Amino acid sequence: MNENSIPPHLNDLLVQSGSDQDATSLAALIDGVAAAPRPSNPDEWMVLVAEAPSDDLKAHLRAQLTDAANTKNGLDGEPTRPERTTALRAEMSRAGIDGFIVPRCDAHQGEYVSSNSERLAWLTGFTGSAGSAVVLQNKAAIFVDGRYTLQAQDQVDAQVFEICHMADISATEWVARTLPSQATLAYDPWLLTPKQVARFAAACKRAGGELVACQENLIDRVWSDRPADPISPIAPQIDTYSGQSSADKRLEIGNQLVAQGVDCVFLSAPDSIAWLLNVRGADVPFTPFALSFALLRADGTADWFVDPRKLTKPVKNHLGNGVTLRLPQDLENALIQLGAKKATVRLSPAEHPAWVFQKLESAGGLVNHGTDPCQLTKAVKNHTEVAGIRNAHLRDGVAVCRFLAWVDHHANDGEISELNAADQLERFRRENDLFRGLSFPTISGSGPNGAIVHYRVCEKTNRPLDQNSLYLVDSGAQYLDGTTDITRTIAIGRPSPEMCRNFTRVLKGHIALAEARFPVGTTGSQLDILARAPLWNAGLDYDHGTGHGVGAHLSVHEGPQRISKMPNTVALQPGMVISNEPGYYKQAAYGIRIENLVCVCEISDIPDAERAMLGFETLTYAPIDRRLMVVDLLSPSEISWINAYHEQVFTKIGPQLADGDRIWLKAVTAAV
Amino acid sequence: MNENSIPPHLNDLLVQSGSDQDATSLAALIDGVAAAPRPSNPDEWMVLVAEAPSDDLKAHLRAQLTDAANTKNGLDGEPTRPERTTALRAEMSRAGIDGFIVPRCDAHQGEYVSSNSERLAWLTGFTGSAGSAVVLQNKAAIFVDGRYTLQAQDQVDAQVFEICHMADISATEWVARTLPSQATLAYDPWLLTPKQVARFAAACKRAGGELVACQENLIDRVWSDRPADPISPIAPQIDTYSGQSSADKRLEIGNQLVAQGVDCVFLSAPDSIAWLLNVRGADVPFTPFALSFALLRADGTADWFVDPRKLTKPVKNHLGNGVTLRLPQDLENALIQLGAKKATVRLSPAEHPAWVFQKLESAGGLVNHGTDPCQLTKAVKNHTEVAGIRNAHLRDGVAVCRFLAWVDHHANDGEISELNAADQLERFRRENDLFRGLSFPTISGSGPNGAIVHYRVCEKTNRPLDQNSLYLVDSGAQYLDGTTDITRTIAIGRPSPEMCRNFTRVLKGHIALAEARFPVGTTGSQLDILARAPLWNAGLDYDHGTGHGVGAHLSVHEGPQRISKMPNTVALQPGMVISNEPGYYKQAAYGIRIENLVCVCEISDIPDAERAMLGFETLTYAPIDRRLMVVDLLSPSEISWINAYHEQVFTKIGPQLADGDRIWLKAVTAAV
Repeated sequence: MNENSIPPHLNDLLVQSGSDQDATSLAALIDGVAAAPRPSNPDEWMVLVAEAPSDDLKAHLRAQLTDAANTKNGLDGEPTRPERTTALRAEMSRAGIDGFIVPRCDAHQGEYVSSNSERLAWLTGFTGSAGSAVVLQNKAAIFVDGRYTLQAQDQVDAQVFEICHMADISATEWVARTLPSQATLAYDPWLLTPKQVARFAAACKRAGGELVACQENLIDRVWSDRPADPISPIAPQIDTYSGQSSADKRLEIGNQLVAQGVDCVFLSAPDSIAWLLNVRGADVPFTPFALSFALLRADGTADWFVDPRKLTKPVKNHLGNGVTLRLPQDLENALIQLGAKKATVRLSPAEHPAWVFQKLESAGGLVNHGTDPCQLTKAVKNHTEVAGIRNAHLRDGVAVCRFLAWVDHHANDGEISELNAADQLERFRRENDLFRGLSFPTISGSGPNGAIVHYRVCEKTNRPLDQNSLYLVDSGAQYLDGTTDITRTIAIGRPSPEMCRNFTRVLKGHIALAEARFPVGTTGSQLDILARAPLWNAGLDYDHGTGHGVGAHLSVHEGPQRISKMPNTVALQPGMVISNEPGYYKQAAYGIRIENLVCVCEISDIPDAERAMLGFETLTYAPIDRRLMVVDLLSPSEISWINAYHEQVFTKIGPQLADGDRIWLKAVTAAV
Repeated sequence: MNENSIPPHLNDLLVQSGSDQDATSLAALIDGVAAAPRPSNPDEWMVLVAEAPSDDLKAHLRAQLTDAANTKNGLDGEPTRPERTTALRAEMSRAGIDGFIVPRCDAHQGEYVSSNSERLAWLTGFTGSAGSAVVLQNKAAIFVDGRYTLQAQDQVDAQVFEICHMADISATEWVARTLPSQATLAYDPWLLTPKQVARFAAACKRAGGELVACQENLIDRVWSDRPADPISPIAPQIDTYSGQSSADKRLEIGNQLVAQGVDCVFLSAPDSIAWLLNVRGADVPFTPFALSFALLRADGTADWFVDPRKLTKPVKNHLGNGVTLRLPQDLENALIQLGAKKATVRLSPAEHPAWVFQKLESAGGLVNHGTDPCQLTKAVKNHTEVAGIRNAHLRDGVAVCRFLAWVDHHANDGEISELNAADQLERFRRENDLFRGLSFPTISGSGPNGAIVHYRVCEKTNRPLDQNSLYLVDSGAQYLDGTTDITRTIAIGRPSPEMCRNFTRVLKGHIALAEARFPVGTTGSQLDILARAPLWNAGLDYDHGTGHGVGAHLSVHEGPQRISKMPNTVALQPGMVISNEPGYYKQAAYGIRIENLVCVCEISDIPDAERAMLGFETLTYAPIDRRLMVVDLLSPSEISWINAYHEQVFTKIGPQLADGDRIWLKAVTAAV
């Protein structure tokens, strides 16, 4: 829809519905909405136009959004990929620089980015969630990790980009070896952290060249149909779900700053800001984030740098007096003012944009190096959050049980494929109260596709659920009261004895972790081996972590706690939610993973205990496939765990199911 | 013996035995010998005087050494402790400084120091193995850790020194709070590392004062009867035991330096130098070290800065052409020369003296920050070393079995005390081939003394082996072919059911670690929980590491690998020797520890293993007390391990025992 197609009566429609918008501002707003993911309620955004739009206005808005979304799809079409690199090189020449760094990230350094931050995908075609490219005048390379080497080979034009495995050669090592002497390599200081800048600067120095920050991202200059900044309505996360007011949280973190002699902390992690201000948004896929920045002062007041078009009156009221709304472009002035006052600002050199350090320090401000204090406090859920998360899991468990029954009933029809299974699961979930969308793209892997740890099903790779194989499904949802993440591995037909043995080993690891008891102060790194030992005893292992933190209606992957081989010094604390997901993968054959979410809890039932002990409360309730268990490999205590867990699954989920599904659940949760 | 008492014919005796010494040089040599620990062969040092001293000369040397040792006992007697602090303060005034740091360490940063480095003990009376003091003009404090708070209260005059627990207040924090503004705090740059210097400098800055290096240690100026630098004969560690020539080792480490672009590495760790040059000494207790420094170049040649009086002709021949002998005082010139050449020298800011950094950098040299490369390479024992260590453990096992039988036979007599038990154990060990001394002071703890993790028996605390209690004995020896370390906990009379339950839990942890199988790349931190989980399940734990590295006729505590709660990023490699020593301690009641040494080995007997797997070979053979095992708490696989282990103990050790002891061993290793 172009200017000409705006209906002459649009302004009338807007006025009639009490909207502040006019046709011009509305067009810009809709460009932003088009750049945000589609929420489960597709008309949700219209509250940003008017509190109660008329049906006529709604119809118009729908049409205009569809039009905007079709115009700016952003990534594909003209110019061709090689032409894009050529255009970037011309822009580099104009700017007088010899190279440019294109990371797959935005200023918030999160897992998902908005469509207009997909610069790496636009330039190279690579759509993986991690990677970076370096473009020189006569050479270019893209760097991806082991998860993505095959995908990169598939998506990237090897005539234009050398495709490098990060483990073989890092981007910085490539720069050190490839950058011509005297050359300047440029970066966007919003997209690199000081830690990354230091590494690239050292690499340039080794090459005899120089690293320079550029004022504007060069990709943005040549990406003509680049989407707008995303706009999605920000909603309050009410105290019923958050369990603590934003004012209380701000005071709590503020007191931490006081104790550390820090005047204020800069925040760019969307989940920190969402948690701190008790708000949720929808600017990026799968995570209820509004992209924004904030400065929290030690007195508990905050400045929130956010596009005001995302805010409705109820949200502004919800924020209260302690939060000052400011435009995103005001951040620079705010940093200059802090500098002028010689303020000490907590910044994280591994998480925050180099741009912020540079602005603050050049204005005279002092940097207090440290991590974002919201992350640890947010990871420890309060009682209200834990209660909400439990409820979300019970509702999610109903959807998962209905799905598992559906798979069992239809697996032999030969009509279930990875794609329609994932769709069916999402359909069951959509029926749940408080559903807000999936928490990540469903991993629906049949047979050999189950062995691809980060598999994402598409038409090209879609497989039916083969007979005598394993089907792995890893999925989760966002609910207003919690975020879920569950993996089940399902027997289709008669899996081989080897598959059953390895499933049982994975299950033994899962149980060992679920039953772990450990003293206060223990980290996830210390516990990791519990989940692996049964596989190690058979000479097997899996190449991913055992557990990641999960937010309360926030990111499905959050820190700072983690259960993994990698050293992690964050002690587990009661209220932390974390996944328990050992697996086993036989390349080109099958994959196994068993994942429940658990919540760290106090253990007070040990007679004569001398230490304060912790353990895990299981949050996820769905049957684990008994057909895949080799009972001879299970100890009596492991069998007790399975039977007790299944009894709880039936008790908690059974009453919510229709008769047919309940009878099915009774059978699949019968004692081993 | 003073000058007057030298017999008129001493020079004749020396000449007759072909010695290069005269009476004056001999007196200085003997002062050094007196300052070294007494070796198991008390006349060993005489080879430094003459290859084959006559009996008359020997008799004289013995008498002169006794005399020297009595004159310079170093630590006790006049002046009184308060007078020593007063003298130090006067010296501080003369030097124009306001405070002085007195750490308990020497330039080698090892566990044991020579008698003339016991400055902290001389000044304060505190004889623990870790701690430091800071003396200001009107205040002084000593800082010790949890192991030593009681001991410090016992030994230190609280009128003079505030006794601080490091966990409550560190020395640097105390300085930051206590040092007067404008004051200068001095340190000996030989005794602090750059990392420590940086911490003290920051603390002084916070106090508004300044940290300065002093040219000479102020304690040495006021410690009038301070012992000489220790002198003990250096002996070759022949290839039969070392398994690799020094030239090969130097080339191997040299090649690592080449790959890292480093010209040479500075070495001050006595075990690194002993390993690299295939030599052993006896300058400090319990560890076969010669205190010295070395510079190893990337071409594999080395300069060894060592007192030439410690060296005999055979050792010099053994060293070969690649090692240049230099006087310790030449180190300064060597660093200045490296600086002039702009050489890049590997130095470790956490291990090496600040003095070396300061000399090198002020001369223009470049520091390559990194760890001592000998440590990791040394930790991975070669086949010859592992074979020697196995043999040493079999001989040591004979002594331990004889001791355990002796305890069993006499435990009910009421005549065994902690002290005479330790003596008896040492006596059995002395009978072994290749015995060179204990590897650490025997921990011999009866009843409540067993609960003191770092207990060191003395007349004052000595207890009999009480009826119906536990006796914990942790001991080890140095043999030319290996170093041992074993702990057993023994039932005396009828220990309580609680003692037996907790013993069994410790045993379960020990077995879990002994049986662990893990992929290449796994660290000790990942395995630690295996040893703790059975205690954690009962709400119990122990506050020490689970395993430390052990040298090959070197230190009984070595790195860099470690099994502990603390993150450690060093992967276990085949050939690494490490202890397996979980425990449990009930304060004021009893202590339990079960310790074997194990060697990391490849595991190749797992059918269908997909990963290269490692495990542990047990090196220590001595029975574990069956009377303390609660069989109901043991799994069938744990019982199998116990029976298989005991069968091996009897097979390997039984044939070396006299009939009575062998019959005893047969009974105590019978199947559970």
